[in-house]
Amino acid sequence: MSTSFNRRITLAARPQGAPKPSDFAAVDDAVPTPGDGEMRLRTVYLSLDPYMRGRMNDVRSYVPPVRLGDTMEGGAVSVVEESRHPKFSAGDIVFGYTGWQQYALSNGAGMRTVDPSIAPISTALGVLGMPGLTGYVGLLDLGQPKEGETVVVSAATGAVGSLVGQIAKLKGCRVVGVAGAEAKCRYAVDTLGLDVCVSHHDADLAEALKDACPDGIDIYYENVGGKVFDAAIGLMNVHGRIPVCGGIAHYNDTGSPPGPDRLAGAMRIILTRRLTVRGFIIFDHHHRIPDFARDVSEWLRDGRIGYREDVVEGIDNAVEAFLGLLRGENFGKLVVKVSENPTGGGSGR
Amino acid sequence: MSTSFNRRITLAARPQGAPKPSDFAAVDDAVPTPGDGEMRLRTVYLSLDPYMRGRMNDVRSYVPPVRLGDTMEGGAVSVVEESRHPKFSAGDIVFGYTGWQQYALSNGAGMRTVDPSIAPISTALGVLGMPGLTGYVGLLDLGQPKEGETVVVSAATGAVGSLVGQIAKLKGCRVVGVAGAEAKCRYAVDTLGLDVCVSHHDADLAEALKDACPDGIDIYYENVGGKVFDAAIGLMNVHGRIPVCGGIAHYNDTGSPPGPDRLAGAMRIILTRRLTVRGFIIFDHHHRIPDFARDVSEWLRDGRIGYREDVVEGIDNAVEAFLGLLRGENFGKLVVKVSENPTGGGSGR
Repeated sequence: MSTSFNRRITLAARPQGAPKPSDFAAVDDAVPTPGDGEMRLRTVYLSLDPYMRGRMNDVRSYVPPVRLGDTMEGGAVSVVEESRHPKFSAGDIVFGYTGWQQYALSNGAGMRTVDPSIAPISTALGVLGMPGLTGYVGLLDLGQPKEGETVVVSAATGAVGSLVGQIAKLKGCRVVGVAGAEAKCRYAVDTLGLDVCVSHHDADLAEALKDACPDGIDIYYENVGGKVFDAAIGLMNVHGRIPVCGGIAHYNDTGSPPGPDRLAGAMRIILTRRLTVRGFIIFDHHHRIPDFARDVSEWLRDGRIGYREDVVEGIDNAVEAFLGLLRGENFGKLVVKVSENPTGGGSGR
Repeated sequence: MSTSFNRRITLAARPQGAPKPSDFAAVDDAVPTPGDGEMRLRTVYLSLDPYMRGRMNDVRSYVPPVRLGDTMEGGAVSVVEESRHPKFSAGDIVFGYTGWQQYALSNGAGMRTVDPSIAPISTALGVLGMPGLTGYVGLLDLGQPKEGETVVVSAATGAVGSLVGQIAKLKGCRVVGVAGAEAKCRYAVDTLGLDVCVSHHDADLAEALKDACPDGIDIYYENVGGKVFDAAIGLMNVHGRIPVCGGIAHYNDTGSPPGPDRLAGAMRIILTRRLTVRGFIIFDHHHRIPDFARDVSEWLRDGRIGYREDVVEGIDNAVEAFLGLLRGENFGKLVVKVSENPTGGGSGR
């Protein structure tokens, strides 16, 4: 996969609704040469995550959007090809937000070294990376699960949800997943060890979820919004918690959806059942990284949790893979293998 | 106002939308005679509060609804007329949930004595009672105000809101009220001491609130829902808090209102600005009563806070007064003076 140029994927147009391939462009530049204090990184794995959809809109959010013509943002695991930086050497494996491209220059800011001896390096994008930390903090710190409680996790086989469900099981909860495809639901129960998994394709999702939660819901880990939220909030127990991690069902909305208006009904339940609904963005919780890294590494090593990756080959397939992610077509943490992995393979369970 | 019968107001029909007078009935019974361990109470002040609307619906909530034909529930301050109870004596002033009626029998359960030397006894229904505790706990415990933060309180001159605003001022916050009538807005600023008060009748409420909150909103104390919520949530700062105390704009809804659907937009803001939205019902927070009673009594005594009551005369006017409350027509804590106050008058500022 070595090339004589650096292909990068840029934002060509701001999407109206669902993004289309023409909202992106491929641009070929010269492979960069590091100056003093810099290093050249060759991207090995690029992470594709739902939050990237928000970066494509020109609206106020928690960080500025990607500008038109700029390289799409994203975290990646790279190998240092050439270093003129005192702290990094050629051959090092690093993680940083280097974007959708084959090569990047870096002065080291925001980069951290990835230790290939702990787990396959791609996990720095998933179970041991930002999605993993998101699931860990969202469940444990915001959700505050107690033994015997019922936890419902949407997008249950995704990068975040799969860790939420498995940690909730480790904490002694009854865990009910919500996913789409039948294969995902089976995987959630058979491999991740959830008690039940309900499909959001079910004609009567609310009824199916109710059957799966005979004691109601104490924690609803919110990744999706839409009808899954509606089904879950109606089953919340008094003093229930809803960590709000995402709402992928609405990322392509171009304005408020048509009625009926569900807000007043949701607020009524929040009030009468004394729920806590709390949004969070993972960079507010980086102080938990040491605990997270220790706990999850240990659980992985002991085989108490597993993970699954959906690996797409080549930067040229990144756009299609991302569009599929927004449609829920990935199965496990979606990564693009951009170039050869110098540490060898690696895959989830 | 002494009568030879006990007039009580019962729930005659479950309202569809806004309640009408025919949803209530007046029933005259004999004045009750206490048995052993009982006492007869003569209602002096009956409290009318928005939560009572919810009790009229036959739906799951935090307590069972009033049954058809039963006396409407409500807190009241009464005088003990005749006691065969060891702990209460004739002439004692007591508070309890004795309902919309002129007389009640009580075995003492749930009754507490009101000390007329602290403040006028009607305040046991307002600033020193359930609404006061609700404002105190909602602002301080859930809102966690910090000096210099901006607090927006809806229904700013109401029984709960007026205490929220005044306590927030005591805590060094910039406080912006939202109320209806111009006289209420003036009162909020001139008497309660809020920095600004915006009318929800303003043609562009969102813009008016934005002007009033140049640094955004850190705490939105939610009493009303509807367009006030919409205006406020758009201005919330990162890590803002929304204690959800009520939503009177929706209490007469018979189902989900027509679109557009505001829920996804609200959830997006909750997520990206990392808000905490927390519903509460005051009976979960009774452990705070000693702190509340100490602090608010002291603030009242020192003249650091004031209160206002809207006193309606006679049980026969309770229904109209309650319907007016749901339309926002009261100005201050709404109470019905059901019979002569044996301790003398008393009024707010």
